Amino acid sequence: METKPQTNKKLEKVADLIGDIRIAMMTTVDEQGNLVSRPMAALQVDEDGTIWFFTQRTSPKVDQIDNNNKHVNLSFADVGDASYVSIAGTAEELDDRAKIDELWNPQAKAWFPKGKDDPELILLKVNTHMAEYWSASSSTMVRLVQQATAAVTGNPPKMGENEKVYN
Amino acid sequence: METKPQTNKKLEKVADLIGDIRIAMMTTVDEQGNLVSRPMAALQVDEDGTIWFFTQRTSPKVDQIDNNNKHVNLSFADVGDASYVSIAGTAEELDDRAKIDELWNPQAKAWFPKGKDDPELILLKVNTHMAEYWSASSSTMVRLVQQATAAVTGNPPKMGENEKVYN
Repeated sequence: METKPQTNKKLEKVADLIGDIRIAMMTTVDEQGNLVSRPMAALQVDEDGTIWFFTQRTSPKVDQIDNNNKHVNLSFADVGDASYVSIAGTAEELDDRAKIDELWNPQAKAWFPKGKDDPELILLKVNTHMAEYWSASSSTMVRLVQQATAAVTGNPPKMGENEKVYN
Repeated sequence: METKPQTNKKLEKVADLIGDIRIAMMTTVDEQGNLVSRPMAALQVDEDGTIWFFTQRTSPKVDQIDNNNKHVNLSFADVGDASYVSIAGTAEELDDRAKIDELWNPQAKAWFPKGKDDPELILLKVNTHMAEYWSASSSTMVRLVQQATAAVTGNPPKMGENEKVYN
């Protein structure tokens, strides 16, 4: 996937983490008010933090997005690396065959065996409203040592970075 | 963390995955309708799929939960293993010092340096309404080969398990 240089420099770390993790859990609100999520492969991050996905036109999540003022959350998690991203945004469906062609990749064929011309295949374009990330500033091992130290000494560890970025 | 044997046998795989991944991204709805998430360490999974967390009493998510009929989503993701869990549920805050004592662990001291008697420390008890999981039935390597095969042959790969479990 391609992550473009970010116009808002504060989004650069977020874009880097998304580029590394790639798979989001996308949360939507269903007709009963339940919050439900499912894994989705991010395809591209634009200069303004917009994130692109493929979806089935008739997927329940498309209706859930339309019925909840387009609100979605994307969470990207790398437990081993202690890196986490939350994207609060709105999603729009787009039937843009040129853009589908641009973003098409061989991996997508596993989910869309008919290929990029499958009429069921459309785009979900997520406009990022707020991004928040948590990242260990050093390796996992160092972080675990910091935690253990805190538990023994009562001193809070340096938990790495946590920054909210409003777009 | 402890994951107890599940009364609903269909939840056993879910509990296993949660026990392996441990860190959830918990999504709530904020006062503007945005869906926001943050990493949370799961402490225990009960026999009925209930999942326990610590939180700060004055955390914004506590108000967000109360203002949205208690709805939350928990996503557990292990990108390397291609394992994903979505828990749709409701969360309740509990100030139960005996239960806090039972669930207290040295790692928690990194977030609550004053220890288990910190009056800011309370419990979030998430009642699972619906669980869904995605899991490669074999190793990551085999799964990637299946994907590559699909891309070449046009045959959909065996994508591993995906099951919804209603509680």
